[in-house]
Amino acid sequence: MSFADHIRACNSVDRARVVPLIAGGRRIGWLRHDNAAALAPYRDAFAVDGDAVRLVASGDADRVSAAVDAVVEALVAENRVPKWRNETFDVMARWGETPIFRLDRGAVPFFGTRAYGVHLNGCVREGGGLKLWIGRRAPDKRVSPNKLDNIVAGGIGNGHGIVATLYKEAAEEAAIPAPLIERAVPVGAVSYCMETELGIRDDVLFLYDLDLPADFVPRNRDGEIVEFELMAAEHVIERVRTSDDFKFNVNLVMLDFALRHGLIAVDDPEYLDVASGLHRPLD
Amino acid sequence: MSFADHIRACNSVDRARVVPLIAGGRRIGWLRHDNAAALAPYRDAFAVDGDAVRLVASGDADRVSAAVDAVVEALVAENRVPKWRNETFDVMARWGETPIFRLDRGAVPFFGTRAYGVHLNGCVREGGGLKLWIGRRAPDKRVSPNKLDNIVAGGIGNGHGIVATLYKEAAEEAAIPAPLIERAVPVGAVSYCMETELGIRDDVLFLYDLDLPADFVPRNRDGEIVEFELMAAEHVIERVRTSDDFKFNVNLVMLDFALRHGLIAVDDPEYLDVASGLHRPLD
Repeated sequence: MSFADHIRACNSVDRARVVPLIAGGRRIGWLRHDNAAALAPYRDAFAVDGDAVRLVASGDADRVSAAVDAVVEALVAENRVPKWRNETFDVMARWGETPIFRLDRGAVPFFGTRAYGVHLNGCVREGGGLKLWIGRRAPDKRVSPNKLDNIVAGGIGNGHGIVATLYKEAAEEAAIPAPLIERAVPVGAVSYCMETELGIRDDVLFLYDLDLPADFVPRNRDGEIVEFELMAAEHVIERVRTSDDFKFNVNLVMLDFALRHGLIAVDDPEYLDVASGLHRPLD
Repeated sequence: MSFADHIRACNSVDRARVVPLIAGGRRIGWLRHDNAAALAPYRDAFAVDGDAVRLVASGDADRVSAAVDAVVEALVAENRVPKWRNETFDVMARWGETPIFRLDRGAVPFFGTRAYGVHLNGCVREGGGLKLWIGRRAPDKRVSPNKLDNIVAGGIGNGHGIVATLYKEAAEEAAIPAPLIERAVPVGAVSYCMETELGIRDDVLFLYDLDLPADFVPRNRDGEIVEFELMAAEHVIERVRTSDDFKFNVNLVMLDFALRHGLIAVDDPEYLDVASGLHRPLD
């Protein structure tokens, strides 16, 4: 592995293998050709042609969501979408706009709608060294079981904002109390677009750094993380460079952290791959 | 003005208005159609067709540079390139590779070869507030006279590395002594590609942050900066948002700084424009 390998893995989408999902004249998703073809029978909700799929269900978010849910139910029965996760993500062309509909999280890659998450870097500074709290994902996680992860990370469910998601996940995943998480500093976002078995993951991760007291120990409450380890930040970056131990997108979060904190030398042959590869332009 | 306006201004290149400059099968520059056409007579150095311009001068960097210099001399005489600046930039497809030739800085936009620079954010932290030393460019500067600038910034001339350029410019532009500049932390790079009157600026700026002692006062030695002012970082960002007072590319450097230091709120409508707009992918 190399830094650039991780960046490439997260940006594997090939425009020749997808068609846009259009609503109101604007792109809201990417459908792989097989997934687009699978929508052809559901003419009440989608219009499929060779170049694009158009959302034709109309009305407010409740009505469009109901129409899309009926299609998702059929897709689950056809084994094209994994079973319902009963957690919905807002769908819109651009972050901050009024959602067009809500989509079950399990169906998001099928439609290739953009998903948003929050990742927190939990830092400890002592004796001049910079350390990071790193979690290990539970073996029963659907995505990336057993992989290393941020101290706190989660998708932004419908109706939840960035900050509310951060606070909720910080409490559930690492038992970080509110007075502590309030000190978290927003430090940007990484973005990537990859093909997976299910379809397209077009993700934006909002990033926070939090300096934690040396005596704070994270404690998982929701069963998603099985253990935490405090690692030297330099060791984390070397492990990113040489292994596949971290969840695919957490590699990008760690590289962004490393870059911002001067942990990658400017004469590293991959310096510009990292500096220019973590923020895929959002169209 | 808005944050996104500054990002758009620095990314104004339109692929329909340029052709690639090719050397050894790889792109090393972008030529506007008028500039490409102007190279047609110089068949010893360049081969022009409708889709591309190929470097045909061959040999080591000295020989190729001499062949290109002869063309640049003619272009200066034709008033297509401003007068010689007698400072040369290395030209190569990718940073870190062996240079193919050296090009006078004044001719870089004509050929649209990628240029590299170093910018330093000079920070002062006192009483909980974050401040930035901001310079004002001299009125006789060719590019962006009288505009606000970083405390230290400069192009990376041929044969000079990133660190050597930082040290040299820190001494010349702000009289920052070596023991102080050694503490500067590399924090990434911004990249953009814009059309200017002369051609295409395809730039990468390596960025550093430096925490300066409260009693340090920068002093310019090379006449390029006429005054320095210590400004509250929040005021700097608001001025970026609402004015055109900063040099075009320094707006991007300030936005990157603001993002990394939590100075832009996550609910700012332009948050993702900034987070995804400062790192144009390098092809």
